[in-house]
Amino acid sequence: MPAWIDRILMSAIEKMADPIPIRLELGAPSPADSSTPFTLPAIWLKDRRALFALVRNPAINFGELYSQGRLEIEGDLIRLLESLYRVPQGVIARTASRCYGWMQSNSLRSSRKNIHHHYDISNEFYQMWLDAEMVYACAYFPHENATLEEAQRAKLDLVCRKLSLRPGETVVEAGCGWGALALHMAKYYGVRVKAFNISHEQITFARERARREGLASQVEFLEDDYRNIAGSFDVFASVGMLEHVGRSYYGEFGRVIHRAIGNRGRGLLHFIGKNRRQPLSAWIRKRIFPGGSTPPLRDVMTILEPHDYSVVDVENLRLHYARTCEHWLNRFEQCYERVVERYGTVFGRMWRLYLAGSTAAFRAGSLQLFQLVFAGRACNSLPLTRDHLYRRTAGQGGQDMEWIHAMS
Amino acid sequence: MPAWIDRILMSAIEKMADPIPIRLELGAPSPADSSTPFTLPAIWLKDRRALFALVRNPAINFGELYSQGRLEIEGDLIRLLESLYRVPQGVIARTASRCYGWMQSNSLRSSRKNIHHHYDISNEFYQMWLDAEMVYACAYFPHENATLEEAQRAKLDLVCRKLSLRPGETVVEAGCGWGALALHMAKYYGVRVKAFNISHEQITFARERARREGLASQVEFLEDDYRNIAGSFDVFASVGMLEHVGRSYYGEFGRVIHRAIGNRGRGLLHFIGKNRRQPLSAWIRKRIFPGGSTPPLRDVMTILEPHDYSVVDVENLRLHYARTCEHWLNRFEQCYERVVERYGTVFGRMWRLYLAGSTAAFRAGSLQLFQLVFAGRACNSLPLTRDHLYRRTAGQGGQDMEWIHAMS
Repeated sequence: MPAWIDRILMSAIEKMADPIPIRLELGAPSPADSSTPFTLPAIWLKDRRALFALVRNPAINFGELYSQGRLEIEGDLIRLLESLYRVPQGVIARTASRCYGWMQSNSLRSSRKNIHHHYDISNEFYQMWLDAEMVYACAYFPHENATLEEAQRAKLDLVCRKLSLRPGETVVEAGCGWGALALHMAKYYGVRVKAFNISHEQITFARERARREGLASQVEFLEDDYRNIAGSFDVFASVGMLEHVGRSYYGEFGRVIHRAIGNRGRGLLHFIGKNRRQPLSAWIRKRIFPGGSTPPLRDVMTILEPHDYSVVDVENLRLHYARTCEHWLNRFEQCYERVVERYGTVFGRMWRLYLAGSTAAFRAGSLQLFQLVFAGRACNSLPLTRDHLYRRTAGQGGQDMEWIHAMS
Repeated sequence: MPAWIDRILMSAIEKMADPIPIRLELGAPSPADSSTPFTLPAIWLKDRRALFALVRNPAINFGELYSQGRLEIEGDLIRLLESLYRVPQGVIARTASRCYGWMQSNSLRSSRKNIHHHYDISNEFYQMWLDAEMVYACAYFPHENATLEEAQRAKLDLVCRKLSLRPGETVVEAGCGWGALALHMAKYYGVRVKAFNISHEQITFARERARREGLASQVEFLEDDYRNIAGSFDVFASVGMLEHVGRSYYGEFGRVIHRAIGNRGRGLLHFIGKNRRQPLSAWIRKRIFPGGSTPPLRDVMTILEPHDYSVVDVENLRLHYARTCEHWLNRFEQCYERVVERYGTVFGRMWRLYLAGSTAAFRAGSLQLFQLVFAGRACNSLPLTRDHLYRRTAGQGGQDMEWIHAMS
């Protein structure tokens, strides 16, 4: 039986979740508790200290306590998080706005640290649960039953089609992960790619893969910051990197793009965003993505406007990212014991919460995934319709594309 | 031989067009002049007073002089205007920013006047050169050789598909023109529509058409302002109306949408926009669209953000609008004599310049056409992909659509 102080703290937490009914318990759930699926989802807090910590700073400490095993969820973790995310003015929205400025630097030096923190955990770790192509970004499910492998390949190809790549063109990629997109572009669309990334582990992996697949002469992987991109290109691509740029660098990001592709080029930005300006979860920024941010479209316009770039196409792939994260979580659970063995329980639980929370946030719409295509004012090779993106017969390669030339 | 004063004025004008080489002449072109297609395009000014007027206020007086027959273009009018539009910091961009605040009111009362000015010229006038469906907005050319009639029907259907209409749903349309979209929705998608418009001529026409086609029980045409929309609907649609709303009313426009469809609904905004905040041509606002404005996407976000609406899809149909205007101009030229007979030469030339200028502006990219789909945070019927928009077999009706339910 909890003491009166516990009851006060617990009712404070329940109020934060309002109108979502949650059940708070002190102690540890017994296996029997989790076998009764029809009760309210419950949050078990190990002791009064955990209860205090959650009341004091729920945005950070929900994640901290969960990671440390001092907070357990009885019932479906994703479902519970999803319902909390659906409360627009609820605990998550209110507490996420607490500032963690000291972690929010996106300078050249800080970016290296930020990226190292997440992407250099080890390639073996990501290989345990990513797809074979090692694509760590939203997949594209062309139909309900696509597998993760199919969906990631379909995403790579969708990006190439949206960019209307033609053989012999040059592409610069800012933030290339383990190189899957750059290699897909080179292999199936006959373009030459310079791909930038400041994660040492990823670049090493990508170079080795390019060499192994005989694409090293077509794709150059550079371990360098996007701010150091030099040279002229036909196309700019960036998948899952804008989240690491930081709003105060959007002006510079725009100038980098314009320096690279000028007024004749076209580009694609693929990024996690929000419906309006709202900080990314404080815990995610503390533990998972230091320096991360999820811009609303309005902010992204400040990258494009100064250079008179036209928005050509925006697609919201939120539901695809919810599925992608669900796949990742399922695979992660399958190798959970190995993860814990190698990286410890706290790390394992932290990552479980991050993947479950991301699934929930994309389902609930508190995160969005935007794929945005833009073109310079002198770009004269825009397809008239988006029909070619969806042609059943279109396979690998963009040769069957119809063009209209805006300028005569 | 022009006097020295003329030469100074002429060189001032040539400088405004820089770096576009234009030839300025005083007097009137002889028929022989316009038969030499390989010379520079020339602008003929009737006399020194015309020259003065153009130097004093090119943004307004280019159009005024052209309408009055005191400025003639030797060579291709669209081509000349297009090249002027392509100079980003040229005369058009610089002079367009002169403010005509007194015409820029979009209050309930002013909107009536603004809309009356343009849309109530007479239905017969628009019937002379619009398509059979009387669609006075950007068409959608599914392939290179589509006719205007095909393209307008394709556009109506594209809008319905983007909105994923299902039989029995309710739609509210803000700014319905002569009713083509509302009637298409009702006829082929089985929805009920309330369509608002403050143009008396258009509403009268639309009601008559609904009655004639036996759709009057499904489609209600209301001669009223969008601000007076009342009731609950599944879907909000607005094609070619946002340009008349005015930025200072975007907050109210957003509240009207939210009142109508809440958090479960979805909607489509189809509007002429710009890459960045820049006023619409001053002459166009003076003579053609009083109160008109062409927002950048960034401003449109201020309609959606307060209500947590997600941008689902944005398509830029700029090149389709260039084609549409070209079709309109060709048809207009075919009935030019009749137009002049009925409305006078100044009116005829004014409309020729407006249609040619619009063609040029869309070709040059100084105008964009955005079709934007958005959805509320509790909208649970979003198709997983955009594939259904492009299915060859999909015809009239949305029954073959695949759905995924975001919420379980």
